[in-house]
Amino acid sequence: MFAKISGASKGLTIVFTGNGKGKTTAALGMALRAWGQGMRVLVLQFIKGGWKCGELEAAEKLGPNFVLLQMGEGFICGANDEDWEVHCTAAQHALENAKKAIREGSFDMVVLDEINYAMYYGLVDVESVLDIIQSKPPGLHLVLTGRYADDEVVRLADLVTEMREVKHPLAAGIKAQKGIEF
Amino acid sequence: MFAKISGASKGLTIVFTGNGKGKTTAALGMALRAWGQGMRVLVLQFIKGGWKCGELEAAEKLGPNFVLLQMGEGFICGANDEDWEVHCTAAQHALENAKKAIREGSFDMVVLDEINYAMYYGLVDVESVLDIIQSKPPGLHLVLTGRYADDEVVRLADLVTEMREVKHPLAAGIKAQKGIEF
Repeated sequence: MFAKISGASKGLTIVFTGNGKGKTTAALGMALRAWGQGMRVLVLQFIKGGWKCGELEAAEKLGPNFVLLQMGEGFICGANDEDWEVHCTAAQHALENAKKAIREGSFDMVVLDEINYAMYYGLVDVESVLDIIQSKPPGLHLVLTGRYADDEVVRLADLVTEMREVKHPLAAGIKAQKGIEF
Repeated sequence: MFAKISGASKGLTIVFTGNGKGKTTAALGMALRAWGQGMRVLVLQFIKGGWKCGELEAAEKLGPNFVLLQMGEGFICGANDEDWEVHCTAAQHALENAKKAIREGSFDMVVLDEINYAMYYGLVDVESVLDIIQSKPPGLHLVLTGRYADDEVVRLADLVTEMREVKHPLAAGIKAQKGIEF
């Protein structure tokens, strides 16, 4: 908890990583907070795609200052070679979109959701992401989520939180459900 | 990441705790996702109050299905006896509001923001919170945030994530700013 300040803001690079629930949700909460303060927000989802999740429904209601694009092809576990190609293409496409949006300066906050995970699995190369972080406009807030954050990404970031799983309902046999996991 | 299911949902008790950034933001993201899925959400802030933060601005724009009430009296560090009385009264008032809202069943998700912290400092007694968890309607999702979650709260919860601070911008001399911390 912090004292309130005014004045020019420094764009932060923020990382939510770890094996616990709350990484994407924290990024969404941060996006909501920024949107509430009148900022323009872009959320690019690198893995999610193909289903109507709560954040997508919400974004549609929030109007033009809250843009959410699902650019992934869904879960990558158990993907065969052909699927893999599709995932790679989708992730590359998401990355190009991210670069373009950042270059054009149309947003005050850009969330690259699950990009750490996409990097870890080689869908997105580390150098491209480091380049995005290092060359972003000074005022832009950049949020990167997903397990297995790269060490160099962590080194460059201003704020890093590890979400550590203490207890998870799936372990107790409770299934994933609307409004919580999606 | 989970497979999508349909059918009746079990209301979960969810705890975001730990010393890292992302607890309130994760709860807000979860609230946004739930709201996007058509659920009615109440966010009760036990500590925050008295300033116009991003989530409050956002809630006002989201309409009647997303209610956010700041019932706290601000930071409690360094409070003197008189301040303490004010904080206690505010927290009790927040607790009564929470009980009433839960009893009346007007919401599908209730977020008790910073309640763990309020319990830790004795502003709210543990038994009352345990009673809320144990007697809540089966379908209600209850989210409790804040450092120092009580062991018994953790034991009763379905999902617990510890947000662990890896790196924080305040440590690097970067001040708190709009859209990120508030």
